[in-house]
Amino acid sequence: MKYPVGSKTKNSCYIEYSNRGMGLEDDLNITNEQYRINDIAFIYKKPTPVTISKVEFNNKKEPIIKEGFYKKPSTTDYNGLYNGLYIDFEAKETKSKSFPLSNIHQHQIKHLQNISKHKGFSFLIIKFVTENKIFLLEEKKLTSFIDNEKRKSIPLEYFMNEGYLIKEKFSPRIDYLEIINKIILKEK
Amino acid sequence: MKYPVGSKTKNSCYIEYSNRGMGLEDDLNITNEQYRINDIAFIYKKPTPVTISKVEFNNKKEPIIKEGFYKKPSTTDYNGLYNGLYIDFEAKETKSKSFPLSNIHQHQIKHLQNISKHKGFSFLIIKFVTENKIFLLEEKKLTSFIDNEKRKSIPLEYFMNEGYLIKEKFSPRIDYLEIINKIILKEK
Repeated sequence: MKYPVGSKTKNSCYIEYSNRGMGLEDDLNITNEQYRINDIAFIYKKPTPVTISKVEFNNKKEPIIKEGFYKKPSTTDYNGLYNGLYIDFEAKETKSKSFPLSNIHQHQIKHLQNISKHKGFSFLIIKFVTENKIFLLEEKKLTSFIDNEKRKSIPLEYFMNEGYLIKEKFSPRIDYLEIINKIILKEK
Repeated sequence: MKYPVGSKTKNSCYIEYSNRGMGLEDDLNITNEQYRINDIAFIYKKPTPVTISKVEFNNKKEPIIKEGFYKKPSTTDYNGLYNGLYIDFEAKETKSKSFPLSNIHQHQIKHLQNISKHKGFSFLIIKFVTENKIFLLEEKKLTSFIDNEKRKSIPLEYFMNEGYLIKEKFSPRIDYLEIINKIILKEK
């Protein structure tokens, strides 16, 4: 999980949202907003799951969280609806030339498999930062790798051969629905 | 929004999860778990959206949230997948004999309408606590009320005439998918 990072004071830190670089998460949030604005799809990033254990109220009687903990996400980060199709995916960045499977929880893989089984469309979006390449990998290709390979890391070549390269555009920025259209057309 | 309530100390409060009564939210969480365990549907409550502004690390280097704020939810509380059908709903309790529309944000109503338009299935689940009755109301019936009535509150009678009563069972506890099956069969 990606924890917020900002200016550090002793062992605490304040988060500087404005200063963060444009990573995959930001690009996907913008993409999803572009899809929504253009009435194409309604896909959202789920909020980070936290357990809140202490709340205080300010002078305006507004609640302020004073103690909380990050929880393990029980599902993937993104889901939504595209023209009657249930969409579900996890998105990750890697600086290496291979995507370590340890970056996805076992129950998230199980979740992606459940979604495919129940007629949703589930996949990974992986950004290879050094190569500046973004791939979509369908759940069935992910499962096939896990079942047939002993490696704990999926090499870039596997994404190039079995996945789909998503070209970056101005709008929609990371047009993964274009890839999904292609896959659906191919399967018909 | 429902804020956590627990033992109060001055103007702060600690949350006692074990002591909470079984409200609609708990019952729906159990229902969704029963659906998942029985491999029927994969529908989850989304985490409460919070903005985290300060994080500290304990001795084990685990992050602890030390300041955060509740955000307005941009969508509904529940969504997921049932046999290829995208499911999306908001659930609310009311102690009155009428459901105040002010209990749902305008953008949540818009979201439910967008979902229907894009071939998902969207609705409300409303519990009338005093009557101990739970209803499912389809988005189109909600929209029809808003468009045709000047009242800012939907009376119980409207739910009885235009909605579907969900009978409580042992398992699944609040079987709203049974109602959806009926609606889909009727429309075919």
